[in-house]
Amino acid sequence: MAQLLRVQNFNISSDGIGAGEHQSLEVPFGLPAPQRLFSWAGATASWPMRTDPGGSRGLDDYFTRDFSHNIGAEIMGRNKFGPQRGPWLDHEWRGWWGDEPPFHTPVFVMTHHERPSYTLSDTTFHFVDAAPATVLERAREAAQGKDVRLGGGVSTIRQFLDADLVDTLHLAVSPLELGSGLRLWTSPDELLDRFHLDVVPSPSGVVHHLFWRK
Amino acid sequence: MAQLLRVQNFNISSDGIGAGEHQSLEVPFGLPAPQRLFSWAGATASWPMRTDPGGSRGLDDYFTRDFSHNIGAEIMGRNKFGPQRGPWLDHEWRGWWGDEPPFHTPVFVMTHHERPSYTLSDTTFHFVDAAPATVLERAREAAQGKDVRLGGGVSTIRQFLDADLVDTLHLAVSPLELGSGLRLWTSPDELLDRFHLDVVPSPSGVVHHLFWRK
Repeated sequence: MAQLLRVQNFNISSDGIGAGEHQSLEVPFGLPAPQRLFSWAGATASWPMRTDPGGSRGLDDYFTRDFSHNIGAEIMGRNKFGPQRGPWLDHEWRGWWGDEPPFHTPVFVMTHHERPSYTLSDTTFHFVDAAPATVLERAREAAQGKDVRLGGGVSTIRQFLDADLVDTLHLAVSPLELGSGLRLWTSPDELLDRFHLDVVPSPSGVVHHLFWRK
Repeated sequence: MAQLLRVQNFNISSDGIGAGEHQSLEVPFGLPAPQRLFSWAGATASWPMRTDPGGSRGLDDYFTRDFSHNIGAEIMGRNKFGPQRGPWLDHEWRGWWGDEPPFHTPVFVMTHHERPSYTLSDTTFHFVDAAPATVLERAREAAQGKDVRLGGGVSTIRQFLDADLVDTLHLAVSPLELGSGLRLWTSPDELLDRFHLDVVPSPSGVVHHLFWRK
């Protein structure tokens, strides 16, 4: 079975924006704060951060519960790891993700500034200064036969699309315009030369876009 | 985490029919043959019986690949096991499902005629003459914390609905009328007093109906 590189549950606005600008330690997603983009996932029964019982078990729940299935490693850009730019000034700070990161696999952080790997709970972070194809090769090896999730953010996904390394994408498009920020696309049609597309409106208002390689 | 009783990927026609009549060894699904009801699943990349690479990875694929996730046991009616009625005349015949049954868990076959359990590959069949609540209790125990799949057929699902034991249902409604056969419902509205419903049309033509308990 081929090991796929999959974008899963990546959230963007109706105008294609997946993250704000001016990211900082206090404002992980930048401004304007795009947290509203993932409210659909928080409403589902399978949302990993859910603390009370309940939540919906309809269409959106399939996507939240599929997030980790058959995933053996994640690749993320440095901005998904933290707000720092340039050389690391502080190895003590260990990412946005707390003592129990939600990945539960090896994670490969793409950065021009490598630093030692470390493990938090069942997630190990590696820092790699390499081209997308090389990072993917390392992630596939670590995934031990399972698929690799491409976690984002926007510019990391664009790099892997440019290198034609992505096998499937699930983008959840929320019915709100952000106007400014980091833009994944102007229109989903930009990917149709290389991908099939199912457009699936959810009763929650989000429109799931499912791409798979032709 | 609660152990759910889930109907998964159960296929019916637009007029609510899930199986034909006059089931026999040669015609497992009865007449008129409703195999066309699951062609949507066979077209997906995750279809377990797929022998060639390829297949779609859009919406329908989420449902085929979710079939086994977090399932620890299955309950089925006797007609899903085989065409025999009344006392077993032949213990040599071991069900429709071949030497590698697609369940990979304990399976509880509801029947008024018990017979010894046996194992084929990683599936063990048990034969239970008991009310739905009792069978569910045994299946939950065997599932070791995972969910239980209610595999059908039609009359088995109706029994568990009547006993109010079902937590979620995924019904795939195909755009064809069968006219006669075993009918699950006249309209999905019959379940709306007890369940939420997401209606999700797939680009393949099938309409996924996702119910979860209110």
